Amino acid sequence: MGAPHAVSPLSRPLPDLATVSGVRLSAVAAGIRYQGRTDLMLAEFTPGTIVAGVFTKNACPGAPIQWCKTAVTTPYARALLVNSGNANVFTGQAGVETVEACAEAVGKLLHCLPQDVFLASTGVIGEKLPQDRIINALPAAEAALADANWEEAARAIMTTDTFPKAARRDVHIGKTPVRIQGIAKGSGMIAPDMATMLAYVMTDAKLPQNVLQSLLSSGVGPSFNSITVDSDTSTSDMLLAFATGAADNEPVTGVHDPELAEFTLAFNDLLLELALLVVRDGEGATKQIRVAVTGATSNISAHKIALSVANSPLVKTAIAGEDANWGRVVMAVGKSGEPADRDTLSVGVGGTWIARNGTVVEGYDETPVVAHMRGQEIEIAVDLGLGEGEARVWTCDLTHGYIDINGAYRS
Amino acid sequence: MGAPHAVSPLSRPLPDLATVSGVRLSAVAAGIRYQGRTDLMLAEFTPGTIVAGVFTKNACPGAPIQWCKTAVTTPYARALLVNSGNANVFTGQAGVETVEACAEAVGKLLHCLPQDVFLASTGVIGEKLPQDRIINALPAAEAALADANWEEAARAIMTTDTFPKAARRDVHIGKTPVRIQGIAKGSGMIAPDMATMLAYVMTDAKLPQNVLQSLLSSGVGPSFNSITVDSDTSTSDMLLAFATGAADNEPVTGVHDPELAEFTLAFNDLLLELALLVVRDGEGATKQIRVAVTGATSNISAHKIALSVANSPLVKTAIAGEDANWGRVVMAVGKSGEPADRDTLSVGVGGTWIARNGTVVEGYDETPVVAHMRGQEIEIAVDLGLGEGEARVWTCDLTHGYIDINGAYRS
Repeated sequence: MGAPHAVSPLSRPLPDLATVSGVRLSAVAAGIRYQGRTDLMLAEFTPGTIVAGVFTKNACPGAPIQWCKTAVTTPYARALLVNSGNANVFTGQAGVETVEACAEAVGKLLHCLPQDVFLASTGVIGEKLPQDRIINALPAAEAALADANWEEAARAIMTTDTFPKAARRDVHIGKTPVRIQGIAKGSGMIAPDMATMLAYVMTDAKLPQNVLQSLLSSGVGPSFNSITVDSDTSTSDMLLAFATGAADNEPVTGVHDPELAEFTLAFNDLLLELALLVVRDGEGATKQIRVAVTGATSNISAHKIALSVANSPLVKTAIAGEDANWGRVVMAVGKSGEPADRDTLSVGVGGTWIARNGTVVEGYDETPVVAHMRGQEIEIAVDLGLGEGEARVWTCDLTHGYIDINGAYRS
Repeated sequence: MGAPHAVSPLSRPLPDLATVSGVRLSAVAAGIRYQGRTDLMLAEFTPGTIVAGVFTKNACPGAPIQWCKTAVTTPYARALLVNSGNANVFTGQAGVETVEACAEAVGKLLHCLPQDVFLASTGVIGEKLPQDRIINALPAAEAALADANWEEAARAIMTTDTFPKAARRDVHIGKTPVRIQGIAKGSGMIAPDMATMLAYVMTDAKLPQNVLQSLLSSGVGPSFNSITVDSDTSTSDMLLAFATGAADNEPVTGVHDPELAEFTLAFNDLLLELALLVVRDGEGATKQIRVAVTGATSNISAHKIALSVANSPLVKTAIAGEDANWGRVVMAVGKSGEPADRDTLSVGVGGTWIARNGTVVEGYDETPVVAHMRGQEIEIAVDLGLGEGEARVWTCDLTHGYIDINGAYRS
């Protein structure tokens, strides 16, 4: 990690970022692992800021994950501290003590309770996090806090990422303008149920914690939990949402409050945008792939089938080779373990059905499919012909670049 | 498929092959897809030969799989016909008719019932199998039948395999000498529950079908169902065992008959040898990897954890890079979804424990581990510290070679 890789051909420029009232950020170089770049991000939230979170389901999570899971049981957050270069995972009791010491140090600096400080670490697993470097860098981080430092924050949390990731939406709750803005990092070890993926969404909206948590929990399904790069699930993933309340909108009664409808749409849309940025920075990616499954016996079944296709190395290498090798898609559907019937199964690419009901379409013309496969955004459709279940999953192709990035010594 | 690839650095020379009384084989070039090589293998078994089989669990199997599943419900086999180059999968009703026509043609030639003819096809999915080329080649195949053609048979069934695979054991049932000899093919799309893997084990032993089926069903677990190359499961896998009875040993009363003990050990050992040959020919493989899991809550749980490690692209690329990146092993254990506790988890490489009970071993010396990682046979040990469950799984590393082989157009 940290070795510079060529910027992904699927990279997107940062959007026009603005400030979010109640949030100040900074990024400094603490020298944790990388040389000549920032690796520590601090965010300060105005008192009364509400927090919600979802976390990795990996059974061997890092100490910061355990800290945040406890911290999120009370609704308030005053700070977020994220370092890159070292994940503080599998570091035993020392890792736990590091987390406590960092939270303590931030609390002292910002005059808040340690349990209102949220922490995250991303990078190498199994090495002790040099907490002194972090704690020594905190005064500089505090001095640099400013409401405009979003790009700097997005850059400081990168590991093997080749471009910084952020998204923004400006909407209304009732008649009050509110803003949602988020940053994310992640490019390898990405799979559903959260991956080596950190994402932080901040809004100036005033929302009760149960509403914010509910938005996050249901929004993560069709976004971050519907992307996969390599089927590997990190020990450190988290998605946190912070609502500062500075917009002072009318109180929201619940997730189904009609005044919240526009916000909910924008929130979900922003989560998907951030998630797709992670896919587009998938290690070695040259193509973004969408797998859309319909006609499954249930939505859950459709999701599993879509993931089986999206995680298949044979499908992903075929797409890297611009080969519409739909036979491999059939194989991946069949291996999912979900209900499938060869004789009702259809496979399409780029809007063209190649096979229908168990055999190649009569007079199938490969021309539009070949053209589609040369593009950067590949669409695979699978129809099971069994029921109404559907799901969409995004991934990227599997290329030499993935091997280069991950096969290097202690990458 | 079919493009010549460099022979795997892990290849093994063929063992000294002998004849198996009651079996005659041949290999011919039917021109199904490949030029300048054999692609059709025929085996003829003496009347009274008993057959048993296990098949892919892929829900979209090829027509030959369905044929054999039916054929194996009666105990007798007189012939086996295998073609490479085309899998006859996802070919609709035409595929079913092709299978019937081929069985009919072999039956006519060898004067046996079509249902005593076993069929297999391996290669590209979704293209119609040119049955005329097969049927036209049958007379030459029949004329070439001989009891010494084992190497020829092993070569004719290869697809992306870079070397032919066979194994032999000479043992006794009671006082009667018997022989077990098998051939296999497979190098990609290999995952548990049978993969693009064909294996045929033949013996001159006289065994009831229930005993042969029982030996096969229990032997496949720690051998073919404990290997994985890329987590992809083929639509065409099968493992068949044929017992000609020509050795005329004393009747075997059941699988637990003490007279069968030596045979059973040798049979299981031969299955594992064939399975490991498939791993050693894994597409792009440069290292064979054994993942041994102990201390899990059950054997089934241990098997799932071992597979999670063995299928992790991040673990496999790290090993390709000769990096003992045990943090990725921890990640893969954690993502398996099986019971695991970070604080009782230990990870070792090549006989050296790197991490014990959730943290790096005090004074860990990397020297022997670095030396081990440079070898061709890598051993990863995971101890969960929770129970008595254990399992072993074999895989290979993930290299540029895999991308080369599978990322080429219509490979």
